[in-house]
Amino acid sequence: MTDFTATRAMFDLPEGVIYLDGNSLGPLPRAVPARVEQTIRAEWGEMLITGWNKAGWMDLPARVGDRVGKLIGAPAGSVVMGDTLSIKVYQALASALELRSGRRVILSDSGNFPSDLYMADGLCRTLGPEYRLKTVAPEAVEDAIDETIAVLMITEVDYRTGRKHDMARLIARAHQMGALVVWDLAHSAGAIPVDVTGADTDFAVGCSYKYLNSGPGGPAFIYVAPRLAESVRPALSGWLGHEAPFAFDLDYRPGAGIDRMRVGTPSILQLAALDAALDVWDGVDMADLRARSLELQEIFITRVAAECPDLALASPREGTQRGSQVSFRHPHGYAIIQALIAEGVIGDFRAPDILRFGFTPLYLSQQDVEQAADKLCAILRENRWDRPEFHQRAKVT
Amino acid sequence: MTDFTATRAMFDLPEGVIYLDGNSLGPLPRAVPARVEQTIRAEWGEMLITGWNKAGWMDLPARVGDRVGKLIGAPAGSVVMGDTLSIKVYQALASALELRSGRRVILSDSGNFPSDLYMADGLCRTLGPEYRLKTVAPEAVEDAIDETIAVLMITEVDYRTGRKHDMARLIARAHQMGALVVWDLAHSAGAIPVDVTGADTDFAVGCSYKYLNSGPGGPAFIYVAPRLAESVRPALSGWLGHEAPFAFDLDYRPGAGIDRMRVGTPSILQLAALDAALDVWDGVDMADLRARSLELQEIFITRVAAECPDLALASPREGTQRGSQVSFRHPHGYAIIQALIAEGVIGDFRAPDILRFGFTPLYLSQQDVEQAADKLCAILRENRWDRPEFHQRAKVT
Repeated sequence: MTDFTATRAMFDLPEGVIYLDGNSLGPLPRAVPARVEQTIRAEWGEMLITGWNKAGWMDLPARVGDRVGKLIGAPAGSVVMGDTLSIKVYQALASALELRSGRRVILSDSGNFPSDLYMADGLCRTLGPEYRLKTVAPEAVEDAIDETIAVLMITEVDYRTGRKHDMARLIARAHQMGALVVWDLAHSAGAIPVDVTGADTDFAVGCSYKYLNSGPGGPAFIYVAPRLAESVRPALSGWLGHEAPFAFDLDYRPGAGIDRMRVGTPSILQLAALDAALDVWDGVDMADLRARSLELQEIFITRVAAECPDLALASPREGTQRGSQVSFRHPHGYAIIQALIAEGVIGDFRAPDILRFGFTPLYLSQQDVEQAADKLCAILRENRWDRPEFHQRAKVT
Repeated sequence: MTDFTATRAMFDLPEGVIYLDGNSLGPLPRAVPARVEQTIRAEWGEMLITGWNKAGWMDLPARVGDRVGKLIGAPAGSVVMGDTLSIKVYQALASALELRSGRRVILSDSGNFPSDLYMADGLCRTLGPEYRLKTVAPEAVEDAIDETIAVLMITEVDYRTGRKHDMARLIARAHQMGALVVWDLAHSAGAIPVDVTGADTDFAVGCSYKYLNSGPGGPAFIYVAPRLAESVRPALSGWLGHEAPFAFDLDYRPGAGIDRMRVGTPSILQLAALDAALDVWDGVDMADLRARSLELQEIFITRVAAECPDLALASPREGTQRGSQVSFRHPHGYAIIQALIAEGVIGDFRAPDILRFGFTPLYLSQQDVEQAADKLCAILRENRWDRPEFHQRAKVT
């Protein structure tokens, strides 16, 4: 049984804050500051350029990728870290489209995170007018997978509502129709059990700064099914994905397997932060985490329903159909979230009207969740959100 | 007159090391560790998600971009930080090719850094068989610019030999022929005077971990001439380049000017390190830096020529034709560099036979340079490089 009291002690949360926004940016694991300082002073400062060998910087994207891989059911050597999620989406889509040459359509849904859709659109424009992104409603995805689809690009958990797709089913359908799948795990990795191998996906991508707690701007990851990895010809053919980067050949030759999905020089400070942050997972069983997350979500939903029934649940009521977040709709959602943050409960807002709360037993207790529900409902009951300062929109909402 | 004793005091160099490899990875500026720790503990740790507004993380790529812009003659609002140099090369090339639609050829030279060539090749493959990268010898570039060329992609300073292109001349020729220019400043920014405005370039890109001392994996930068910035339609159309990222529209609309060259979530720890590292430049006059750098290089070349005339100079003998590095050729270059590193003088090797030494008066004195030349020549004279351990190739050379 996972000891969540122990995991909680591994985070450095500010006094008096209840943090329900780890689905935007995970909090600071206690091991991170010392690790980053070591990387800066003892590695960069002392080893200088030789840190690429001596401190193992060059292998860090693969070594940390293997650690992330364990959390998503990927075998060693099939995941590599680097760049941002948007870039990794582009890489995966470009590779998938080339493998399915002859087909020209990327299928996605309107619940996908917009950056995925934007990157797909940019790729289609680059590839030419015969390529297009087709976007349907989330519930229409399965039926829209037909033999014209080259790639199905799906974010498993909806960033607004927390609605979870049945990925195994969609992947099976896509394969039946001869399409490849790019599975975005942004709200899945570290949040719910994921098995990229069992579900037989082709590509998976995700970020590390949400449920993996790597800090602002932490690197993304990409998984390529080992059965495909040697067939992929990268569109973003950077030198660190070359078979022999330090031969400095004029011609590109892709590196072995997943290595070819590397592009440029990896962000070593961010990778070091992530590597330290991943220590939290050493004793965590993902099934325990999922069960406890659903308990916490259930407590929150039930309490909100009882105390402030006017708040409309935007997430599926059935836990198995949600990721690790609970969302509500309210026309004054933005101001309500600001009022809540002012009282020490951090959730976030997603336009146009979504109040979004992320749950993880790694650092949240039942008491936290109950208090958060009570504060949210008190703010609504007493109209505490209706103050000018809570309506002023910040640059980042 | 720039006070280089003052700048030297701003770096934390290991005792007894002479560092001639700032052209690979700049050393640690003293201000960096505290700034990164503050970003981790006081910003990420305390502000959590609200750091994007409160700590100004969202504006950091533009704010730091403006500071880099000052070093390359770019006006405020024309440079933004993010991703890696390879990604920025891809962005610039894709934008330039679209602006010059009707032409299909990227022209570059065989002295360019291979990753630039690889990225251009990957982009051409994605665009279709009518696009191609044409690579000529460095000295043949000017004559090869004709009316078939869409984009001239040139790295100003050759990473192997230090040979410097006459960019103003090449840009003028390219414009005369109706081509656009992507100028790679990897070995120029912070190394030599650069004036992207005066030279009227279209796009410029560069990295921050060499002469700007941002640390391993620091972010890249991209400049787009203000006269073009509103016409560019990004191929890597990520959400942070959107006009309104937090509106979460399904359709991409490019942000204002250079903002549209942002892609995904910026690496905040690396940006904070760079921001602190840039303080070194506050009192530096780039003309002083160039003059002193050439003096140091001249001392090194003269001393090596006198003490070990067998070492063949691979760089131009005339200082104005070099960047901020001096290179030699030797069939046992790899082992010689290893022997030199073992004696505390850090240079680096570039296949097949280049010994490469970077110079910057920011932290190098005349005495350092004289000692480095003496050690290099002693190693050669006494064949101290001819030991088995110096022949073992590391992963990163």
